[in-house]
Amino acid sequence: MDLSASMKPALAVVFGISLLALGVAYWLIQWVLGRDTGTAEMRKISDAIKSGAEAFLRRQNKTIGWLAVILAAIIFLLYGFVRSHQEHDPASPMTLAVVTTLSFVIGAACSVIAGYIGMWVSIRTNIRTASAARTSLNDALQIALRGGAVSGLFVTAMSLLGVGGLFAALKAMGYPYERIPFMIVGYGFGASFVALFAQLGGGIYTKAADVGADLVGKVEAGIPEDDPRNPAVIADLVGDNVGDCAGRGADLFESTAAENIGAMILGVGLIPYFGWKGVLFPLVARALGILASIFGVMIVRTEEDADPMEALNRGYYLTSILAAAGFVFAAWWLLGSDKAPDAWKYYSACGIIGILTAQAFVYITQYYTEYKYRPVKEIAKSSETGPATNIISGIAVGLESTAVPILVISAAILASYKLGIAALGAEGGLFGTAVATMGMLGTAAYILAMDTFGPITDNAGGIVEMSRQPEEIRKKTDRLDAVGNTTKALTKGYAIGSAALAAFLLFSAYLDEIFNYTGKHIGVDLSKPEVFIGAMLGAMLVFLFSSLTIRAVGKAAYSVINEVRRQFREKPGIMQGTDQPDYGQCVDIVTLGALKAMVLPGILAVAGPILVGLIFRVFITQANPTIAAESVAGLLMIGTVAGILMALFLNNSGGAWDNAKKYIETGAHGGKRSDPHKAAVVGDTVGDPFKDTAGPSLHVLIKLLATITLVLAPLFL
Amino acid sequence: MDLSASMKPALAVVFGISLLALGVAYWLIQWVLGRDTGTAEMRKISDAIKSGAEAFLRRQNKTIGWLAVILAAIIFLLYGFVRSHQEHDPASPMTLAVVTTLSFVIGAACSVIAGYIGMWVSIRTNIRTASAARTSLNDALQIALRGGAVSGLFVTAMSLLGVGGLFAALKAMGYPYERIPFMIVGYGFGASFVALFAQLGGGIYTKAADVGADLVGKVEAGIPEDDPRNPAVIADLVGDNVGDCAGRGADLFESTAAENIGAMILGVGLIPYFGWKGVLFPLVARALGILASIFGVMIVRTEEDADPMEALNRGYYLTSILAAAGFVFAAWWLLGSDKAPDAWKYYSACGIIGILTAQAFVYITQYYTEYKYRPVKEIAKSSETGPATNIISGIAVGLESTAVPILVISAAILASYKLGIAALGAEGGLFGTAVATMGMLGTAAYILAMDTFGPITDNAGGIVEMSRQPEEIRKKTDRLDAVGNTTKALTKGYAIGSAALAAFLLFSAYLDEIFNYTGKHIGVDLSKPEVFIGAMLGAMLVFLFSSLTIRAVGKAAYSVINEVRRQFREKPGIMQGTDQPDYGQCVDIVTLGALKAMVLPGILAVAGPILVGLIFRVFITQANPTIAAESVAGLLMIGTVAGILMALFLNNSGGAWDNAKKYIETGAHGGKRSDPHKAAVVGDTVGDPFKDTAGPSLHVLIKLLATITLVLAPLFL
Repeated sequence: MDLSASMKPALAVVFGISLLALGVAYWLIQWVLGRDTGTAEMRKISDAIKSGAEAFLRRQNKTIGWLAVILAAIIFLLYGFVRSHQEHDPASPMTLAVVTTLSFVIGAACSVIAGYIGMWVSIRTNIRTASAARTSLNDALQIALRGGAVSGLFVTAMSLLGVGGLFAALKAMGYPYERIPFMIVGYGFGASFVALFAQLGGGIYTKAADVGADLVGKVEAGIPEDDPRNPAVIADLVGDNVGDCAGRGADLFESTAAENIGAMILGVGLIPYFGWKGVLFPLVARALGILASIFGVMIVRTEEDADPMEALNRGYYLTSILAAAGFVFAAWWLLGSDKAPDAWKYYSACGIIGILTAQAFVYITQYYTEYKYRPVKEIAKSSETGPATNIISGIAVGLESTAVPILVISAAILASYKLGIAALGAEGGLFGTAVATMGMLGTAAYILAMDTFGPITDNAGGIVEMSRQPEEIRKKTDRLDAVGNTTKALTKGYAIGSAALAAFLLFSAYLDEIFNYTGKHIGVDLSKPEVFIGAMLGAMLVFLFSSLTIRAVGKAAYSVINEVRRQFREKPGIMQGTDQPDYGQCVDIVTLGALKAMVLPGILAVAGPILVGLIFRVFITQANPTIAAESVAGLLMIGTVAGILMALFLNNSGGAWDNAKKYIETGAHGGKRSDPHKAAVVGDTVGDPFKDTAGPSLHVLIKLLATITLVLAPLFL
Repeated sequence: MDLSASMKPALAVVFGISLLALGVAYWLIQWVLGRDTGTAEMRKISDAIKSGAEAFLRRQNKTIGWLAVILAAIIFLLYGFVRSHQEHDPASPMTLAVVTTLSFVIGAACSVIAGYIGMWVSIRTNIRTASAARTSLNDALQIALRGGAVSGLFVTAMSLLGVGGLFAALKAMGYPYERIPFMIVGYGFGASFVALFAQLGGGIYTKAADVGADLVGKVEAGIPEDDPRNPAVIADLVGDNVGDCAGRGADLFESTAAENIGAMILGVGLIPYFGWKGVLFPLVARALGILASIFGVMIVRTEEDADPMEALNRGYYLTSILAAAGFVFAAWWLLGSDKAPDAWKYYSACGIIGILTAQAFVYITQYYTEYKYRPVKEIAKSSETGPATNIISGIAVGLESTAVPILVISAAILASYKLGIAALGAEGGLFGTAVATMGMLGTAAYILAMDTFGPITDNAGGIVEMSRQPEEIRKKTDRLDAVGNTTKALTKGYAIGSAALAAFLLFSAYLDEIFNYTGKHIGVDLSKPEVFIGAMLGAMLVFLFSSLTIRAVGKAAYSVINEVRRQFREKPGIMQGTDQPDYGQCVDIVTLGALKAMVLPGILAVAGPILVGLIFRVFITQANPTIAAESVAGLLMIGTVAGILMALFLNNSGGAWDNAKKYIETGAHGGKRSDPHKAAVVGDTVGDPFKDTAGPSLHVLIKLLATITLVLAPLFL
């Protein structure tokens, strides 16, 4: 049988749906751009946001570009000259060096392009949403969601096209398909690398601007949020785009890319059962998930007086159901085999476990961060005795909120592992966990559309506020903004959940890769001191990285505070409304501050695992030829565990503080401007860098640890 | 050769020095009790503290006693009826059940007795220190340290006597010495069990009283700390005793007990080299360390105008040097063998590594928590922009402070492991890490004396303040109190450092025990999903436990706040000084609150690992007969890693916040009553439950995880 010919239908589905998704995204861009752009004053504000966001992204991409070039050179040198050639490898060392380096560059470039287009649309959608809010809530909702969907579709489709394209290209060049997944791990690393800096830079930017604007504006000068007299207000609105939209886009780009490659590597192990089909299954399943998301986005519509969140939830449920159906179809098509005719049924169940896990994470996040429930109420109540008890109780809630997610992930991993064993015996277990991860990430495009909805509606609210629109329009954008806050929180829960589930898959891929190079199945035995130390260092890396990112926000915010104070001091007319604040200066300062501040944690994340691996190479002995690779695996796995817990803690405590403040603002415990409210504002400010900088950066860190070790595995042997 | 006869000199050293230490402690008690007890007013205050502390300890011990009886019954039933008999075991199941249960009860009882006597002396030393401060700084210093030394000597000597006594008794009953260490693991578990509740109850008590007294007294009523008008002030002073003195005493009691038994188990593995000598070496080394501490305590004296900390440091250096010398002697005596004549040199080096690691931890803790250095200054500076930035920067400092300790521990483990291999080859590596731990714990008695010095001088300061002594006497007790704060912080650093180093030793003992029962060397392979999930659950347990302990303080503090408010409301004369506050009522409320609040985290800590082990027993298959034991090992190891990091974070951020406030009180950033000072008070209050409840409870938790798994290992097979 001609392999290439038989693969054609599967590859056609992958490429067809990816291109279709890009086409739909293009159509959505045209649809959004055709909407009304409101009054001249609204346009002035929107233009300021636009130019600030574009200036930041340009500068950030330049920095990332330089760092990527340096890293590409290092990868090339390491692969070309340091690692020894493996006899059974069909590619020469130089070919492998070229392919890995190129994959890295392509992965990085695709991520940058997807992020850029997503944000390009998002900063043009905000004003159109604001304008539409003047006439119809449904119009505003649809514009915001479809603008966000551009981001969602571009990110997931580009990620798929990249992996699929590299696979097809190498296949066409004659490499055996079972080798290709190992050759393109650089793609995942490129994506992680960009995501790390995009999330770090964007996350630091958004919170430095926010904290800076709040501390001087709200606290010192006593002017409301989004007041046009605050010189940092534009920087704050820019921050929502570069942090939530560009940052999370890059995060999910790498999630899907790394997970696709990792699952393909595990699929290689099942070739005796499924042949090429197991290797391509992840791509087909992903493609069908994108298709489901398109339908989900298109059906969303709301009545004027309904809760817009319900409309979004309807879309999500439709997406989940269609994704599940697509999943079962893909499993039936590709995971059937004479040797295991029923395997597809078990693996379908694994996929559905993944989809349910995503739902569970959404619910748990809601429980811990919405003020309908006990945790946020507890924080609000403790605000009565001042900021100290507010902080203590927020931290207690955040620490507690790690428990149920870990139980859910544990159950999902165990159940899908056992189902995988039921499908194929011991060999099939790990693939079961991989399939569950695919299920969880199946709805990624829709989730990302909901996420980008957040900064768009937030910006729309800011534009409406700053252009002093009537109260009733503000109320409409406030409703959308509240929904946006919820969707942003849910996406974070989803992102960390999928990272946790993907983690086990990526470890297994790493171990498979070690097997591929050494022909030896290694364990990761914590009772060896080197591995235990690797594990300690991995967990420590997470703590140190969190410290650096939290501190980076403080530093960048400090410069914003000083600038705003300077403007208020030198131009007293600003507060009277007779003089214009210099928004651009604030945008420049926070841009520079964020880019400078992202370098140290970024380098720590990249250099940490490499250093540990290289240091432990010294301990390699005849009896222990894989000890360095094993120590790095310990670092990777326990770094991931610590990262998941820390990210849950940071995201959920931050979200809970935020909503405890909002709950008090509804009139509870004394309402706005009471002492409990002041205490709750302290908690909210502390939570800002937790939930929008450090937490999301940790999502990226744990996947970066996985992809970096995948790429550099040959070095540790 | 008659084994029993040849062991006699070693056992004589162990028992001789233990009894000598108890004799010295008795002499110190007489010496302290013979000192002047000051004025009638001072005695009145001191009596109130005394009766409050004793009432709490009585009630707490009653609660612990009941829980211990239940647990003893469970252990007896499990050992007697659930676990299957191992063929090569010389003891019958029923004998083993009786011995394990009895060891548990004896361990628990010894810990309670040592803690009780330590506190009995400490609450009698405080007033004598206060009285002596009226005439001589040196007298006050010596009284406080020698009173603290009673605690240090009782704890370490009782721990040693218990282990040594059980060993000698079972030896006399005819059991082979190489089996005995496995039979007495219950002793360590009993000690851990008491320590858990002592530290939880004491830690919750001390901070609930402190936070409650501060929030109503300082913040709401605007009266200074230790003001006699505050109804919670006596409860606050009681708290220092039950938390720092009784709690930390129980903590180090179990550290030394568990470490002794763990090291003896590893010594069993080296019988081919050292025979019984390797098994008894840990006890002899510990005994010589106690001897060194006695000398250290006795030489401490200070000039009137010198820094008392220098005097304490001199004592510590002498103790370290003598302990190192004793260590080398013990190694030369007991770790020589024809097969490895130079082994004792390498193991001496391991012991010295341990002593140096202790020193390193003391320095690192100082760097992160004293206001001479960058971290605390950074927090103080960020207080200028309000409580939120103070909190953010404190958390950043706390997270950062985990990095260097982990590097130090990693280096110590690796170096001592490699030295152990150099001594005996691959088999000797783990014993090297055990010997390093013994070195680190060698100075425990002196460290504990310095620690108990803390609450004694704190109380002395309170007595001087409340009895309105002249300014110059207050200055003297303030100086001692400042030193006491430092020593308390250092002890915490030392306690967590030794717990970290001991952790690896205790894992290894656990694995040795599994080998002892199954004849199979198991690894702890993270690439198995069950083990990975065990690891995740272990780390999660730490987060959840921290949440529960932090929240417990909040709950108990809340009831104190309400009581103080009630007294102020119902007796307005209190604030005018015309009416007496009801101290006893506050003491009662916080006692009940703390005892109630300690139950939930305590049960989580004990039941968590047992549940995980029992659940994973379901997954035991022919191919995987040790999977439950392995999962529990994953839980134990990664729970320990997470616990170490979390404890470092909590202890150091708390200490840094405390001293940032004190730094501002010296006049920096606006000084007392400025806005930055108010912000710093918020940080200090947040740090209270971190550093005095959750952090120290985690030290105990990680050792409890180790001892509980040691005792229950047979159940997981």
